[in-house]
Amino acid sequence: MSNHKHINTAEAKNIVSKRKQALDASALISGLLQGNVTALSKCITLIESTAKTHQNIAQHILRECLSYANKSVRIGITGVPGVGKSTFIEALGIHLIEQGKKVAVLAIDPSSSITRGSILGDKTRMNTLSTTKNAFIRPSASGNSLGGVARKTRESIILCEAAGYDTILVETVGVGQSEVAVHAMTDFFLLLKLAGAGDELQGIKRGIVEMADAIIINKADGENIKAAKLAKNAFAKALHLYPPKKSNWQPPVKTCSALNNDGIQEVWSVIDLYFEKTKTNNYFEENRTRQNSYWLKSTIENALKDEFYEKPAIKEQLSVVLGQISAGELTPFQAAQQLLKLR
Amino acid sequence: MSNHKHINTAEAKNIVSKRKQALDASALISGLLQGNVTALSKCITLIESTAKTHQNIAQHILRECLSYANKSVRIGITGVPGVGKSTFIEALGIHLIEQGKKVAVLAIDPSSSITRGSILGDKTRMNTLSTTKNAFIRPSASGNSLGGVARKTRESIILCEAAGYDTILVETVGVGQSEVAVHAMTDFFLLLKLAGAGDELQGIKRGIVEMADAIIINKADGENIKAAKLAKNAFAKALHLYPPKKSNWQPPVKTCSALNNDGIQEVWSVIDLYFEKTKTNNYFEENRTRQNSYWLKSTIENALKDEFYEKPAIKEQLSVVLGQISAGELTPFQAAQQLLKLR
Repeated sequence: MSNHKHINTAEAKNIVSKRKQALDASALISGLLQGNVTALSKCITLIESTAKTHQNIAQHILRECLSYANKSVRIGITGVPGVGKSTFIEALGIHLIEQGKKVAVLAIDPSSSITRGSILGDKTRMNTLSTTKNAFIRPSASGNSLGGVARKTRESIILCEAAGYDTILVETVGVGQSEVAVHAMTDFFLLLKLAGAGDELQGIKRGIVEMADAIIINKADGENIKAAKLAKNAFAKALHLYPPKKSNWQPPVKTCSALNNDGIQEVWSVIDLYFEKTKTNNYFEENRTRQNSYWLKSTIENALKDEFYEKPAIKEQLSVVLGQISAGELTPFQAAQQLLKLR
Repeated sequence: MSNHKHINTAEAKNIVSKRKQALDASALISGLLQGNVTALSKCITLIESTAKTHQNIAQHILRECLSYANKSVRIGITGVPGVGKSTFIEALGIHLIEQGKKVAVLAIDPSSSITRGSILGDKTRMNTLSTTKNAFIRPSASGNSLGGVARKTRESIILCEAAGYDTILVETVGVGQSEVAVHAMTDFFLLLKLAGAGDELQGIKRGIVEMADAIIINKADGENIKAAKLAKNAFAKALHLYPPKKSNWQPPVKTCSALNNDGIQEVWSVIDLYFEKTKTNNYFEENRTRQNSYWLKSTIENALKDEFYEKPAIKEQLSVVLGQISAGELTPFQAAQQLLKLR
């Protein structure tokens, strides 16, 4: 009896709590849709939370926001540390706001869970932009897996769009798998480079150059101008050796000095021209549809993989069969069959 | 009673048949290990067969051969149709045989199941090499999936090695995902190119240049010599813009004329130097270990994916949720969760 009564009390509490959550959620949604920055921040915090109740509310909010999203342009910006990404984003962001745009800056940095937010962790790096009306800056979500961090950033884009931001800049560091994720969630992918020898050795990942829709040689100022022009010509020649992109866009190479606000307008003209062309030839829309399918499938496939490799029996046998393969006792295919049978 | 007797007869037949298979298999294995070409061909045919009994014997043979394998060097060769791959492989193969080597030529061409063997399907394309002792040429295995074809080629490499072939050349066409597979089963990846404008437009896939350990400009003969040298310089400059490879190897660009047997020796010197360097800095072995792990994991992950997407409920709902994503009713993540629940 008391057990029964206890459940009823719990149930009642649950109903009250759910009603409260629903009220909170709808207040957040209407705030967000009116462009309230505090509501937007709170919604992103819910998305970033790992608590199940927060996730449920976050997914509810997202569903309500979806029809207001997808109306922005999304620009991915990558480059190794030291290339001047923050200064560049600040200069570009201010230029866009002066044109009457609303700019949101997000970041993907899976390492930030270890380094405690190396990207955008310190808003003071973007002094002017962070205090400008119509600019919203959010540090990188933390998390253990790139998949998780990427999902949170992707969902944050939707919320920013629903809150009225029409230009989304997504920053990342050109050293890992995160560029592939940013490339797959943006419409335009911009690679920042430095002039001069050594840049090749700064650890930018192979394959990034091929993803770029534009290469911008930053810090083209003072004694660096000549070297920047040489680098520009070298890259322009190299890019011509690549096969054409599906978008039919030939990535240009430009120089700029974000510090001196030099060339920023030209960079934006390039990006703007890209959007004009790809919206006309339908690549823009086709690419977004392809990206949606990519994220659907990669979410599914990551879930299947995680589920498999997290099974204790698989964990135990994986290193065993890798040893047997090395010892020439099994082929990788035979080892795979053995592991698949253990499920 | 009669039923019982019937089973016994079947069992007896089964035992006889299994004994016969075991005898056949051990005859094939000993033939193969002695370098008998007919035995090698038969074993590869078993690997390529989709019949369950053949697969069982094939996997048994592979297991027995494994400890004799891994003693060759494996060279992947790619380039668009018309670049002169067959002539190049013939010239390189004959050069190697003159040096006392035993050369096996395999191919990956997932499209060959449709085109009925566009690669190596016609051995007469390699007139001299195909009739040379110490050369073994095998057309591409056919199959519906790249995964399946890649596995068969990979296992054929093992059999060729066990049969005493010390240099394995794996040919592919530079237009699809097959280069990634060939790159992942060879030690050295060679990209054949043609000089002159238009080659960029011949449809070679983006990303291939970055995988190459050497770029060889073929058909550097007659009036083409000057253009080939210009192309060589352009590619050499472009390659220097790439970050260094894990192997610490800087991919060189060379010209050759396979038709006139010009420059083939120099190409081999490059490949030989690569093996010397990567065997010294341990990259060669590390790379093979990494490749084994890659094949183990990709076999597992492809099996998990196939199993999931082949479920009727998933097949039915996949297009439904894609439509809902397009209509802005679901995020890809939410759609993925829905599909995962249907299992």
